Amino acid sequence: MLKRLTVLGVALLIGLPMYSLVQAEAPSKEPISAIKPAKVANPAMAELGKKLFFDTRLSKSGFISCNSCHNLSMGGTDNLKTSIGHNWQKGPINSPTVLNSSLNVAQFWDGRAADLKEQAGGPIANPGEMASNHALSVHILQSIPGYVSEFKKVFGTDKIDIDKVTASIAAFEETLVTPNSRFDKWLAGDKKALNDQELAGYKLFKEAGCSGCHNGPAVGGNSFQKMGLVEPYKGNTNDGRSAVTGKDADRFNFKVPTLRNVELTYPYFHDGEAATLSEAVDVMGRLQLGRKFTADENAKLVAFMISLTGEQPSFKLPQLPPSSDITPRPDPFGK
Amino acid sequence: MLKRLTVLGVALLIGLPMYSLVQAEAPSKEPISAIKPAKVANPAMAELGKKLFFDTRLSKSGFISCNSCHNLSMGGTDNLKTSIGHNWQKGPINSPTVLNSSLNVAQFWDGRAADLKEQAGGPIANPGEMASNHALSVHILQSIPGYVSEFKKVFGTDKIDIDKVTASIAAFEETLVTPNSRFDKWLAGDKKALNDQELAGYKLFKEAGCSGCHNGPAVGGNSFQKMGLVEPYKGNTNDGRSAVTGKDADRFNFKVPTLRNVELTYPYFHDGEAATLSEAVDVMGRLQLGRKFTADENAKLVAFMISLTGEQPSFKLPQLPPSSDITPRPDPFGK
Repeated sequence: MLKRLTVLGVALLIGLPMYSLVQAEAPSKEPISAIKPAKVANPAMAELGKKLFFDTRLSKSGFISCNSCHNLSMGGTDNLKTSIGHNWQKGPINSPTVLNSSLNVAQFWDGRAADLKEQAGGPIANPGEMASNHALSVHILQSIPGYVSEFKKVFGTDKIDIDKVTASIAAFEETLVTPNSRFDKWLAGDKKALNDQELAGYKLFKEAGCSGCHNGPAVGGNSFQKMGLVEPYKGNTNDGRSAVTGKDADRFNFKVPTLRNVELTYPYFHDGEAATLSEAVDVMGRLQLGRKFTADENAKLVAFMISLTGEQPSFKLPQLPPSSDITPRPDPFGK
Repeated sequence: MLKRLTVLGVALLIGLPMYSLVQAEAPSKEPISAIKPAKVANPAMAELGKKLFFDTRLSKSGFISCNSCHNLSMGGTDNLKTSIGHNWQKGPINSPTVLNSSLNVAQFWDGRAADLKEQAGGPIANPGEMASNHALSVHILQSIPGYVSEFKKVFGTDKIDIDKVTASIAAFEETLVTPNSRFDKWLAGDKKALNDQELAGYKLFKEAGCSGCHNGPAVGGNSFQKMGLVEPYKGNTNDGRSAVTGKDADRFNFKVPTLRNVELTYPYFHDGEAATLSEAVDVMGRLQLGRKFTADENAKLVAFMISLTGEQPSFKLPQLPPSSDITPRPDPFGK
């Protein structure tokens, strides 16, 4: 970021038009880098994690799975402002996409989980989400012969524990990267992959400063920033990062969301209050950059962002091993 | 059924042991016939229907899809006693499996829908289930460019209507058959496909009269019968079929459920009150046949029924076309 601004400063000083500057940049100088296909270290563990990701028995009700709110048919989100939890509770925050989440600096909007493994245990035991607990989840899985044999194959032991459960879910989630977007093809040298409007949008994205925060392979996800930098945000004023750090300076700070697959991950922001990409661009311009984008600029930025939609995860719907007679049954309507 | 009973009567009259009778039966005389693989008449329509089956936008909340209660990772059911509907409403009845449902004489436990197409429209507009309505569903789909082009490809017109929606969902559901169970392999002549206990279970299944109602390719699904024939049922005394026919004689009558994949479709009965196959066998024996199966008989019957688990639907998780800026947004927490 600093480096880019310095280059920009020099460019302004010597009177170079921005256009030529952008054109002159070698691909390695771009603030965004390509998403690489997943290297699956342990396919059997990822396969087990896929089943667990789709398994509603990890919730108290037997109705909610990881995929309910991070729906892999819908960009890894639920496309709701905030999620629906156990007993139809209204969640406090928008479900971020699970796609490319392995690239995040930390997990959750406030970064309270260091990695995907730590994250995976959260919703299972959150009374407002899946409303189960780790002991019950392990007890349920341990009673299902199909799981016991699969855990044994992966971990070399019959004894299931929550660490193995969350490690498997994380191993699956690490496979959920979305390479080969049109933008990445352009980065790789296919100059026809983007049209003029998309290229103009990318140029503006960099010039206006969007890429100051939305950069790297995930086009975000790698820093925390204040929501409402120039102008205060009038939506849901969740404390954000300060709830984790205890620092007042971190109030209203959130992990910068990835813009990969942003075409699919509506609605936007931590509170889901921006229904469309156009609205999100407008709010970001005013609140973070102090700039009102024209309709034409807005359309260009949106066109560029849609070029970030990559190849979605492609796998067969998993078949879950059936419960046994001794498996504790779901309790959707109990206290 | 009548024919089988006649043969049985003759066998009893002439003193033939039942075992030799069963052994002597040619495959064509079996009360159960094999499930045939689906012939997909219109693959593009089935593919469109698959997307719709997984699309939560057909519900008011944007959270519930057909797959929520007919989960194709879990035997085409939700494995709950009764389903969870909009706003966490408790459903009045157990969700029957969608697997092999094209073989049913009619749809729903009370047979109120003649076929899968008619059935598909029900839950979308049921305030206790998906809580949307047909006009809104069509309006939503019509606003999604990816759907509009797919409907055009399938139906030759841009104009979506509920008939095309439900016809597509039904076309997908018709593909959800489960051939090649171990039992079907045995039927086809592979005598090693079943072990002695499973064969003994099948013999008992026929002798005891289970196959009087559970017969045909779906091992059920082809007639309505009274729940509590010999002894009244003490569970949920839903009116059943009489709500459709208006006939008092049809009270407590329900469509006989398929036993295909019954290993996966727990809990059992229209009210889901039997948690295990063993419990279901015990209740059926006493209430329908006036017979208390011994533990050994029960185990044999269960072993036979588990051999009815067929090949589950195998397809890639569908990717849904994203909403456009004008697509009406879900309303999970509204009135």
